[in-house]
Amino acid sequence: MKTKKVNWTKKHLLGIEELSSEEIMIILDQAEGFKEVLSRTIPKVPTLRDKTIVTLFCEPSTRTRASFELAGKRLSADMLNVAVSSSSFLKGETLRDAARNIEAMKVDMIIMRHSCAGAPHYLANCVKASVINAGDGAHEHPTQALLDVFTIREKLGDIEGLKVSIVGDIAYSRVARSNIWALKKLGAKVTVCGPKTLMPAKIEQMGVKVTYDLREAIEEADAINILRIQLERQKKALFPSIREYVKTFGITADLLEKYAKKDILIMHPGPINRGVELSHDAADGKYSVILDQVTNGVAVRMAILFLIGHIKEE
Amino acid sequence: MKTKKVNWTKKHLLGIEELSSEEIMIILDQAEGFKEVLSRTIPKVPTLRDKTIVTLFCEPSTRTRASFELAGKRLSADMLNVAVSSSSFLKGETLRDAARNIEAMKVDMIIMRHSCAGAPHYLANCVKASVINAGDGAHEHPTQALLDVFTIREKLGDIEGLKVSIVGDIAYSRVARSNIWALKKLGAKVTVCGPKTLMPAKIEQMGVKVTYDLREAIEEADAINILRIQLERQKKALFPSIREYVKTFGITADLLEKYAKKDILIMHPGPINRGVELSHDAADGKYSVILDQVTNGVAVRMAILFLIGHIKEE
Amino acid sequence: MKTKKVNWTKKHLLGIEELSSEEIMIILDQAEGFKEVLSRTIPKVPTLRDKTIVTLFCEPSTRTRASFELAGKRLSADMLNVAVSSSSFLKGETLRDAARNIEAMKVDMIIMRHSCAGAPHYLANCVKASVINAGDGAHEHPTQALLDVFTIREKLGDIEGLKVSIVGDIAYSRVARSNIWALKKLGAKVTVCGPKTLMPAKIEQMGVKVTYDLREAIEEADAINILRIQLERQKKALFPSIREYVKTFGITADLLEKYAKKDILIMHPGPINRGVELSHDAADGKYSVILDQVTNGVAVRMAILFLIGHIKEE
Repeated sequence: MKTKKVNWTKKHLLGIEELSSEEIMIILDQAEGFKEVLSRTIPKVPTLRDKTIVTLFCEPSTRTRASFELAGKRLSADMLNVAVSSSSFLKGETLRDAARNIEAMKVDMIIMRHSCAGAPHYLANCVKASVINAGDGAHEHPTQALLDVFTIREKLGDIEGLKVSIVGDIAYSRVARSNIWALKKLGAKVTVCGPKTLMPAKIEQMGVKVTYDLREAIEEADAINILRIQLERQKKALFPSIREYVKTFGITADLLEKYAKKDILIMHPGPINRGVELSHDAADGKYSVILDQVTNGVAVRMAILFLIGHIKEE
Repeated sequence: MKTKKVNWTKKHLLGIEELSSEEIMIILDQAEGFKEVLSRTIPKVPTLRDKTIVTLFCEPSTRTRASFELAGKRLSADMLNVAVSSSSFLKGETLRDAARNIEAMKVDMIIMRHSCAGAPHYLANCVKASVINAGDGAHEHPTQALLDVFTIREKLGDIEGLKVSIVGDIAYSRVARSNIWALKKLGAKVTVCGPKTLMPAKIEQMGVKVTYDLREAIEEADAINILRIQLERQKKALFPSIREYVKTFGITADLLEKYAKKDILIMHPGPINRGVELSHDAADGKYSVILDQVTNGVAVRMAILFLIGHIKEE
Repeated sequence: MKTKKVNWTKKHLLGIEELSSEEIMIILDQAEGFKEVLSRTIPKVPTLRDKTIVTLFCEPSTRTRASFELAGKRLSADMLNVAVSSSSFLKGETLRDAARNIEAMKVDMIIMRHSCAGAPHYLANCVKASVINAGDGAHEHPTQALLDVFTIREKLGDIEGLKVSIVGDIAYSRVARSNIWALKKLGAKVTVCGPKTLMPAKIEQMGVKVTYDLREAIEEADAINILRIQLERQKKALFPSIREYVKTFGITADLLEKYAKKDILIMHPGPINRGVELSHDAADGKYSVILDQVTNGVAVRMAILFLIGHIKEE
């Protein structure tokens, strides 16, 4: 594992928007070291054995919470799960009170998922503990973006100059937003592709190219990040029908064979709607790095907990 | 940390009513030692590494369960959470069967919250494990009262002769009941204050003074413990309206400035209904020790687990 | 604790049907060693400190999950709980995707409960991690059967030639099915007894004797395993009424006094419907080994995790 002195000073991880490209690189390098730890017979280090970390999840989540919990345990931190609905936990109690209460129990970090954009930022202003954003509404999901760029770098090398397409529900996706920030900061060229109804106004201002033609998004890409379609959205008539969506924006092995570069990466944050945004044969096909993303997620989250756990308090 | 030989013999902690003032002092002194442990770089001791402790919560709770779990982990006990609804867990199964099953897995202590008064006492008769009451109906919440008196002693010194007012829903509050027992046993003078409909009949028999005048409750107090108003009660017409309650019994910074002693303590077991029983400015004001209570809760619970974990079995 | 070299090679524990009698004996002998560990002052060994074990429960369960979690913790494994409804977790996601995701986080074993028969077998084909069946539909519940035969062997010695009656809902019981396999493989004579509507067709082909006469099932038995009646079944008119069931198939201390052998064992997998399939006096009577079963469950599960955790990967 790399032990070189790093220059990490951020107390919180709230979003990719706030990070410099240097800071992103520090995380990726650190995660590389932890990926090696994960391959050891005893995949554990005692580095955070003096820390207590709370996962405060106000939205249901299985995989992100599990990934953070494993990351913390492998660093020997004491982990405490607080899984509550935004409604029941905070009934008659401000988010600030709830968080300050948890902090008063002498907690070092709070990993938070919340249905409202900005909730972790608000929290970071209320508490002395470090706050890590595990997804806030449609705003950011920074650890997902970091594991995505880690995976691309691991497979394709330097991100600079690579072309990455993000396909699906761009408007409501925190994964899209965080990925765009991360990829742009590292010098990638980003194309977003999806139905017009799911494309945010003025998205070009983030420095991305917009296309409504899936073939174009495939042809030029070194990697495609396919977003999960929230089937609930259909009720709100944001896209005509599942069948229509699959026909226009569904990625299949056949399409990849026809139009994709020969070493393209197929990525998905999960859980996959198989047969909707991604076909079975593409999800399990030779280009898929979807399970690598999951493994890398633990390494990246270890890196973040480690870096934040070792900053000097002013 | 204090290591003097203590004379603790109680196997269970079921309520404050059963404790002598000497026993309360043993807990408070022990908790003082653990508060020092909590301020260390590695806030952990190996003292209960041979014990398995179950939290059996049959009522929803976030903070009390979290506080007990952290207390156990800091003593290096193995913690197991069993969070169940009184209904689903015990469907067709007696509480006794459920508890004896958990105990048969070689568990040393059961920390129980239950909606029925007396449930932990019943449990203590069924099992060989130690039972700790984490709140039973409207009966007792002994660890809350212990952390309350710990906080008062820490801030104001000897409890004897101090005047403490408890304001709010006295009738349905296990916090009120346990606090009255603890404060009286330690020699404090207790005043209870709240709407007549939320004042239990014959409460004077517990040795407290009753007032329906908030100003009086404030003026004489060294500390005020403000209870959470259960907004659900209003449906049962136990008080006329929230607005009416706030006007008559709500504690504000303004009232404290006008009528309170200059070193008064403002306490609340949480979660606070801000703007109802306690205003924003009073909750966050200079007199508030509410977050100290939370921190002290972990130390007090560590003390209880430690003392019970070290009694000699007859 | 026994440290003799064992010859365990199975990567998964999916059902008793797949086990040889030798393999069952290896588990029972190993569990004997761990039962001794459980009686030590520090009931813990470091043997699985390099393993991460996930409990993936897609059906509600308190006691089986708790037993597995304690077993893992006593072997010093890192335990991660993923408790989800079959519906919400797997909505739009195949079981295979969900499991491969968990596995990609570098997990060594997955302990799974699922409402569909065969789900753990399917899982074992999808993942590289070891899979342990903690109950799949009405199919198998292998660790329950193993703790049952462990308990019989502990109390009565060699299983060969013993007569065991299983009473109750034979048709829908995974406990019955796994017990029949285990007992037959170890040479016991098994009688099943219950209402005709709850007796599977061609059950005799499993090598058991069928009777609809409770007295006969009691008279010849060295041990009776009484199944929990699923009260929900009654709605489907599978038996006439609770009262009728109790009268015809309910086991009472009185019946045992009249008809049972003098050292009979009364067993029940829990939770008991007291007063239905088993009376209070029989559940708590001198023949009952029901709580021994619970204790032995932890030892047997430790044995399984230990054996599977130590196989050599091909």
